[in-house]
Amino acid sequence: MNKIKEYQEIINSKIKQVRIQGKPDELYNPINYILSLKSKRVRPTLSLLSYSLFNEKVDKIIEPSIALEFFHNFTLIHDDIMDNADIRRGKDTIHKKWNKNIGILSGDLLMIFAYKMLENIDDITFKNTFKRYNNIAIKVCEGQQYDMNFEVENEISEDDYLKMITLKTAVLIGFSLELGGLIANQEKKITDQLYLAGEKIGISFQLMDDYLDVFGNDEFGKKIGGDISSNKKTYLIIKLLEKASPNDKENILKFMDNNNQDERKVKFITDLMIKYQIDKISKQKMDIYFDDGMKILSNISNKSDNLFELKSYFKKIRDRKF
Amino acid sequence: MNKIKEYQEIINSKIKQVRIQGKPDELYNPINYILSLKSKRVRPTLSLLSYSLFNEKVDKIIEPSIALEFFHNFTLIHDDIMDNADIRRGKDTIHKKWNKNIGILSGDLLMIFAYKMLENIDDITFKNTFKRYNNIAIKVCEGQQYDMNFEVENEISEDDYLKMITLKTAVLIGFSLELGGLIANQEKKITDQLYLAGEKIGISFQLMDDYLDVFGNDEFGKKIGGDISSNKKTYLIIKLLEKASPNDKENILKFMDNNNQDERKVKFITDLMIKYQIDKISKQKMDIYFDDGMKILSNISNKSDNLFELKSYFKKIRDRKF
Repeated sequence: MNKIKEYQEIINSKIKQVRIQGKPDELYNPINYILSLKSKRVRPTLSLLSYSLFNEKVDKIIEPSIALEFFHNFTLIHDDIMDNADIRRGKDTIHKKWNKNIGILSGDLLMIFAYKMLENIDDITFKNTFKRYNNIAIKVCEGQQYDMNFEVENEISEDDYLKMITLKTAVLIGFSLELGGLIANQEKKITDQLYLAGEKIGISFQLMDDYLDVFGNDEFGKKIGGDISSNKKTYLIIKLLEKASPNDKENILKFMDNNNQDERKVKFITDLMIKYQIDKISKQKMDIYFDDGMKILSNISNKSDNLFELKSYFKKIRDRKF
Repeated sequence: MNKIKEYQEIINSKIKQVRIQGKPDELYNPINYILSLKSKRVRPTLSLLSYSLFNEKVDKIIEPSIALEFFHNFTLIHDDIMDNADIRRGKDTIHKKWNKNIGILSGDLLMIFAYKMLENIDDITFKNTFKRYNNIAIKVCEGQQYDMNFEVENEISEDDYLKMITLKTAVLIGFSLELGGLIANQEKKITDQLYLAGEKIGISFQLMDDYLDVFGNDEFGKKIGGDISSNKKTYLIIKLLEKASPNDKENILKFMDNNNQDERKVKFITDLMIKYQIDKISKQKMDIYFDDGMKILSNISNKSDNLFELKSYFKKIRDRKF
């Protein structure tokens, strides 16, 4: 995975180079804080890998790819406020370290700086990229609102859930690949396929996140069952409520109404998930989306080495255990 | 003022036409709510008036001008959350009518829709307009942060204050005029002058706001002295603290520390403002900025009728009494 490391270094040094500077400190320090936290830079890395399918020299994609990292971090800042989350990437969230107002405003500013990263795109591809970027950004906001709505809704269907994670998470993974094609000035047929491949794989990654929260390793102090504790509507719980007998379902809902029996609740619901094979069902679903995405990719490019890199990177993310 | 009415109608019907539609309702309803509140549409109106200095047919400026209205409304939504304000344009603020999370996210979405309004600008002027827009948007965020910082700072100089209102308010008025020139494809010398004129007049308008809060009419139920009650650091209070004798200053600061004597406080501080001629000093300052801006405008255009319209519009805003 030498190329991945190289790309991550390129991205990190570019982020340092375009270092978001200005006054007042209360506005700029939080942005530089969140950008300095350890991150795999998945989205820009995907853009570079995608671009490399068409062009070995990646210079042109670097700055636009940073837009995706900035946009992603803007959503993290605001989502963490909305979710009342204290920890992000192992450190205090911005609204926790500073305050909510600073979180709102520094998030706003980071979103504008994301747009700034598009300023140097060649004229020939600029307008089209800008339009696609806007549409993707809109979808991500819609996904976040659906996610918030789900917190207070009782019956969420599998389709509702898949639509929500598509908007909230997968469209930006899709666009990370598409951006590579757009900046490499590829025709729409190609960039559409890149988007679609990324969207499908993005869905599979979110399903994997849900799965690992219950069935992953507890290395690095990650708390297993956090989503169950917090009654988060994940693919697993939605599927479990769908499959469970009336009696089991009633017991699950009782546990979800009662926040005082955390350990018993996690164990009870996890056991039922195994009983109803929700772990297997989730893995199957994941695999379908992942394989669909990979198949689309195979049909796109003829630069076999670079395609291999991209697919290996996706597999590496898929095969994580926590 | 027939042309102004005509422009306002054009703007309002364009806002209806590009109606921001989508799902979920929790995200889109708040945006349509705030855009439906009564508003003079000052910023897009200025863009149309500015564009008309160079081109009688205003079609091309309409959609981009809406970006400024959307951006302005985005800042109102988020500022109202940060300021804990319940009322905007005589109605409940979004976070009051819905909740804070919906305020944050619908504000985010409206900012993205502002960018969408730039999508159809001609290629020849697009990139430059986009860059200028980004820079202005950044400054507005900086201004809001300075404004929040001032709430907890004791000694704010006149220069600090003027810098803050320039960023928070005046740069967007400046850009409203500049946008007209940019879309009319005018050379930089002209668009720079348009910006500068608008910025200066924008500063005078904020000084006027500060003045009217204390010395304006209480028509339409507007509460006089609201800024004094809430200890807001306005031009008037900064100037008063600068001019007041040590004894008077001590008494002012005592009142500002004590929130229980609202009516007495407003009267006491207003009387001191009159004693130290802060009303006159403010008006003079206002006039200097206003006249500077108007002078710059006079040198820009040779379309005398349309220049007259623009200047009359500015005068009408200046001469408001509440």
